Amino acid sequence: MLDVCLPGTGGVLPLENRWLTCCWVEYQGKAILIDCGEGTQIALKKAGCKLSRLDVLLITHFHADHIAGLPGLLLTLGNTGKTTPLIIAGPVGLERVVSALTAIVPVQPYPIDLVELKGDRAEKLKKSEMEISCLPLRHGMPCLGYRIAIKRKPIFNPFKAQQLEIPKPLYETLHAGQAIQLEDGRVIEPNMVLDGVRDPIQVCYCTDTQPIDEISDFARGADLLICEGMYGDDTLHNKMKEKGHMVFSDSAQIAKKAGVKQLWLTHYSPAMANPEQYLDEARKIFPQTVAAHDGICTTLGNSKD
Amino acid sequence: MLDVCLPGTGGVLPLENRWLTCCWVEYQGKAILIDCGEGTQIALKKAGCKLSRLDVLLITHFHADHIAGLPGLLLTLGNTGKTTPLIIAGPVGLERVVSALTAIVPVQPYPIDLVELKGDRAEKLKKSEMEISCLPLRHGMPCLGYRIAIKRKPIFNPFKAQQLEIPKPLYETLHAGQAIQLEDGRVIEPNMVLDGVRDPIQVCYCTDTQPIDEISDFARGADLLICEGMYGDDTLHNKMKEKGHMVFSDSAQIAKKAGVKQLWLTHYSPAMANPEQYLDEARKIFPQTVAAHDGICTTLGNSKD
Repeated sequence: MLDVCLPGTGGVLPLENRWLTCCWVEYQGKAILIDCGEGTQIALKKAGCKLSRLDVLLITHFHADHIAGLPGLLLTLGNTGKTTPLIIAGPVGLERVVSALTAIVPVQPYPIDLVELKGDRAEKLKKSEMEISCLPLRHGMPCLGYRIAIKRKPIFNPFKAQQLEIPKPLYETLHAGQAIQLEDGRVIEPNMVLDGVRDPIQVCYCTDTQPIDEISDFARGADLLICEGMYGDDTLHNKMKEKGHMVFSDSAQIAKKAGVKQLWLTHYSPAMANPEQYLDEARKIFPQTVAAHDGICTTLGNSKD
Repeated sequence: MLDVCLPGTGGVLPLENRWLTCCWVEYQGKAILIDCGEGTQIALKKAGCKLSRLDVLLITHFHADHIAGLPGLLLTLGNTGKTTPLIIAGPVGLERVVSALTAIVPVQPYPIDLVELKGDRAEKLKKSEMEISCLPLRHGMPCLGYRIAIKRKPIFNPFKAQQLEIPKPLYETLHAGQAIQLEDGRVIEPNMVLDGVRDPIQVCYCTDTQPIDEISDFARGADLLICEGMYGDDTLHNKMKEKGHMVFSDSAQIAKKAGVKQLWLTHYSPAMANPEQYLDEARKIFPQTVAAHDGICTTLGNSKD
């Protein structure tokens, strides 16, 4: 199962009551963080995300509200006792920006692996069971959306296994895709007890961007789409589009087209104090829309995934 | 009168309940900020400090907890409508560090004047009525303490003015140091109605540093000394000294020797949850010691200064 949390949901600048947009995705004790604006390290602590588990930091783009917290995050991460590598991935230009911001960060006890992503659809970053894909967004500077997918084991059919008189302790090996040989000499292939594949668990994170068709394709069938909603007010659609942003209804349209299970809105303008008030309109387009708030969490999949 | 506020009082890393150490000094609607760690822009807002009034940013040194908030601060300052220059002053190396951290800051509507201070005692930065001096501290990297002084007008003696039959509307001109000529032809020099000079209003800010004698000289007679107190526990004195820091009793000794009017302790270790508990010991050395907390404010001088 995949834990997803938004420790912050604000855009532009950190507020007293709203941290900057970021996303924490944790699977089997390893975590991915998307973006780290000023104060993200505090937001993570407040949301109960354990920084020591951080393995991959994905940067969407190089606006300060998405990356200015990097020096502090790297230093505090060093104090957690981490010694394994931290992957930092982001758009082309990442090395230049990270090198600049770390001018005030001494060498840490963990190595940093920088990965510049060209935004190619075929480009994937694998981290244990987690597969990360990216999509170029439209924001006036190189900006990437991310999809994190966890492959799920195929469906195991215990009736087939019983009919073949396979001892129960061997079920897990077969479920994991390995053939076994029984004491009576029979060789059992996994496909003899499996009932077909299941969709991966998928979460998509797309901010900051104009509404573009490619997001629907990218997020197709995701369990959760986290998408920007700079404003709820539809009349700001054109103005936001010009600035490389979206309003709630844009995200709701994308979620509907993508057929995702749920949509979380985030990256609110500091001028929008109460995102909830615009939610009804967005839900008319896509009913499973949630106006996310700092600290919102969910678990996707079940304990066996 | 000079308003002084500490929006944050923490060292090392920002906490949920304690912002990083910084100091806001405001005089006649113009403000100086000393240091800007991660989250300082939020701390300022919370403490009621109006960012639009910021004229001078003084950096003590280039550890992240004192400067990592620079990109966000500069961006938010740009949104306040500021168009007048911002002076950023700090130790040698300032240009390199500011240039690196502003890799993610586009050109702002106000110009930035960078001033690298060599730490020379004769070196002074003047900003309207405020005179800023600096002192090299001992911290393992170039680090400066700052003193901000406001010259006060000399004492005006209304009895002398009455005896000379000077019309009241002219008192202010004389008090400001300008001679006047009366209708009867007499020339009145300011020294004919003034009773001598007054000490300037002075606030001193010294962190991060080992205890060094020079601080007492530098802070001599100040109205307020703001000094680091990483820990309250005296048994940590040697360990802190090695790391270029002080405990409460070090600061209290300095305040006593300097003969300041008041001492505020700041820059607490994240491991010290309740600085107040060590205050009694420090007060045995210097009774006017305060364990500062986020948002602590005072006004030095009176409304005519």
